[in-house]
Amino acid sequence: MTGTTLDDYSDRYAQRMRGMMASEIRALFAVTSRPEVVSLAGGAPFVAALPLDAVGEMMAQLGGEQGATTLQYSGGQGDLTLRERICEVMALSGIDASTGASPDDVVVTVGGQQALDLVSRVFLDPGDVVLAEGPSYVGALGVFQAAQADVVHVPIDEDGLIPAALAEALETVARAGKRAKFLYTVPNYQNPGGVTLSSSRRDEILAIAERARLLVVEDDPYGLLGFNGEPMPALRARHRDGVLYVSTFSKTFAPGLRVGWVLAPHAVREKLVIASEAQILCPSMFAQTAIATYFATMPWKEQVKTFRQIYQERRDVLLASLTDLMPAGTHWTRPEGGFYVWLALPEGLNSKEMLPRGIAARVAYVPGTGFYADGSGGSHMRLSYCFPTPDRIREWVRRLASVIEQEMLVRAEFGAAAQPDPSRVTWTSATRFGRPGGHTPAPEVE
Amino acid sequence: MTGTTLDDYSDRYAQRMRGMMASEIRALFAVTSRPEVVSLAGGAPFVAALPLDAVGEMMAQLGGEQGATTLQYSGGQGDLTLRERICEVMALSGIDASTGASPDDVVVTVGGQQALDLVSRVFLDPGDVVLAEGPSYVGALGVFQAAQADVVHVPIDEDGLIPAALAEALETVARAGKRAKFLYTVPNYQNPGGVTLSSSRRDEILAIAERARLLVVEDDPYGLLGFNGEPMPALRARHRDGVLYVSTFSKTFAPGLRVGWVLAPHAVREKLVIASEAQILCPSMFAQTAIATYFATMPWKEQVKTFRQIYQERRDVLLASLTDLMPAGTHWTRPEGGFYVWLALPEGLNSKEMLPRGIAARVAYVPGTGFYADGSGGSHMRLSYCFPTPDRIREWVRRLASVIEQEMLVRAEFGAAAQPDPSRVTWTSATRFGRPGGHTPAPEVE
Repeated sequence: MTGTTLDDYSDRYAQRMRGMMASEIRALFAVTSRPEVVSLAGGAPFVAALPLDAVGEMMAQLGGEQGATTLQYSGGQGDLTLRERICEVMALSGIDASTGASPDDVVVTVGGQQALDLVSRVFLDPGDVVLAEGPSYVGALGVFQAAQADVVHVPIDEDGLIPAALAEALETVARAGKRAKFLYTVPNYQNPGGVTLSSSRRDEILAIAERARLLVVEDDPYGLLGFNGEPMPALRARHRDGVLYVSTFSKTFAPGLRVGWVLAPHAVREKLVIASEAQILCPSMFAQTAIATYFATMPWKEQVKTFRQIYQERRDVLLASLTDLMPAGTHWTRPEGGFYVWLALPEGLNSKEMLPRGIAARVAYVPGTGFYADGSGGSHMRLSYCFPTPDRIREWVRRLASVIEQEMLVRAEFGAAAQPDPSRVTWTSATRFGRPGGHTPAPEVE
Repeated sequence: MTGTTLDDYSDRYAQRMRGMMASEIRALFAVTSRPEVVSLAGGAPFVAALPLDAVGEMMAQLGGEQGATTLQYSGGQGDLTLRERICEVMALSGIDASTGASPDDVVVTVGGQQALDLVSRVFLDPGDVVLAEGPSYVGALGVFQAAQADVVHVPIDEDGLIPAALAEALETVARAGKRAKFLYTVPNYQNPGGVTLSSSRRDEILAIAERARLLVVEDDPYGLLGFNGEPMPALRARHRDGVLYVSTFSKTFAPGLRVGWVLAPHAVREKLVIASEAQILCPSMFAQTAIATYFATMPWKEQVKTFRQIYQERRDVLLASLTDLMPAGTHWTRPEGGFYVWLALPEGLNSKEMLPRGIAARVAYVPGTGFYADGSGGSHMRLSYCFPTPDRIREWVRRLASVIEQEMLVRAEFGAAAQPDPSRVTWTSATRFGRPGGHTPAPEVE
């Protein structure tokens, strides 16, 4: 039988695939795993800090004595014992029985990513609008794109999502005859912004959402990784039915087991389970039992403290090095937890265009364009201080500073291209934060 | 803040959710896990037959010494070492380098289920047609429903999918002005039919597919679980570019780790990876390393032989018990591998209507209606002999025979309802098999 060619099928792809491209920077990142490249690109937690010997012993029992159960199929909603542990974890952020949280309304997912995908499958038709912070988590944007939704970015500043901007975005969407299905937000130690939604703004955002009957999808992977004191009560802790709460064990334990969850009002939860069964049948019983056992039998809160100390030290080194070494005109956020700093380049520089030269100088980052659905964000980049050692972080800043200085020199010589092209100015004003001091925000240029 | 009610959001669900209902028999199945109920409903493999001590030791090393890697994120396509092992497994079904199979074209998935979902996301727009065997795997039908595709069933007989019926279905679809995006088929020990596509029909099906430029999605979870000799060459082994091959480790090792895969032509593979990253970010590195290690270091082929012997003994007991105990007019398939027997009830009986009475008699099965997208299949049921012990299987048959006899008595007394309602006759002729002997097939009644 002669083979048909690949192109025979290219006219058969679903429409959603037209918008889903392999990231153009993926090829560049293939080289970032080389030891000579210092990377603040990836958001990998520092799992080597886990008590691996004890974890290994636990795994032995799970695969051995308990193997007949852990290696079997489980239910689509997820294991009840794990869902009970999940409720204990959520209680630390104020989400407890007094606000209607119950193991019955938890759906266990393949990391937070599948939770976001399930929420999107349950709520989004092609052409629906999702409101999301600008900038926003790149993986969530991928989900919304796969759902063929239109993302409208709402700017953030050092206190997180700006309530007035949310109200304005809702009006813009309504004027366009559309309806926003939900607001997607990462209120704690935002990815990539590093900023945290203030307590008063949480109430304001929820009030706006309730008035507009806007569902809120609260994504909270980093909530327990604050460097100063207790977690702030989650949006879900303040509103029982209007918030879907998504989180993951990837940062409090480890991402390699791929276990996350979503807490949803009962009717929504039922739909999420049906959608998940059609997608993966059931989550891994082995992974679920491992997480449930770890959180029931090991000193996990102490371990989270250890993680926090490690990340805080790395953040301190990153901020200090930036202060010491970055050229004038560079600005950045000062996260109080989590993994990320959001850095604004000196006027006129573009992080995406600069990336090949960064890689050539053996320094890697994620350009800000990845965090906007509309291609803006080139004036910024995301720095992840979670994985590299302090020495490597300092070296990274040294190298990046040198790349930026080189870029500025080139621009000073060939300055004509520095004028923003007005047709490329977008309305998403990432520049409303990261450049403090009351300056008029510069227009955002691709 | 006052809570909004759940119904506030009921008008916001995506259209696809309208067709996705919790199975109406799910509530009944909640009771089948009680020890007093004998169930041939579930398709759970008999994982207790695994060398659990050795598996436990392996897990200890994976979580301990290798923890910093196995507990971390991995790439979206899946671990290369595992993809190499996958190619070795596929070679046993004739899928090897000589037919263009390469680790580079494998995508690791969360069980076979996610593989089917990814293929659907890459190819299916709402309203697209999928051709699928009638009956067909219930989990695949759930995926196609979530994709808002129209399933057209193609009947099977004891030699599997009927080529002439496939050609006819293609014509019917074309006459309706539609185009079938792909054929979904389980050629080996089909779920739920238990039948296997003969070698000559494999060539015929591929020839028809090639003429019609019809992509074939070959789902092969049971291919290595044949009771008589070597696996037959897969469809993919006979056609390089026109077949996407999906399989899983759930039956050759264990389902609890949720690892499956899809082998696809290169351009399609790239799209599958993008779709998977938007859905789950990456598969579990721990699960992938566990599978790769198991298949590299343990006597897995011997273990598969052990599984085959266990399942063969159970199949023998089931078939012998059916022959001994079933009332006249009951027919069933005789699988030469895998997990399932497909049973046709005596004329006029309906497996779905009978199920509550079955449960009351402490005997559980899956009604045939679950395996058709159009609600037909009530004349049949699926029996899974993979998990229960031979004693329980015999007891199951005893109980079911008694339930059927009772139903026949009731029908004999209140016979009026036994006349098929012509308006409910469907074109899917599941009755073309399972009732051997040249009788005119009875019309399929819901």
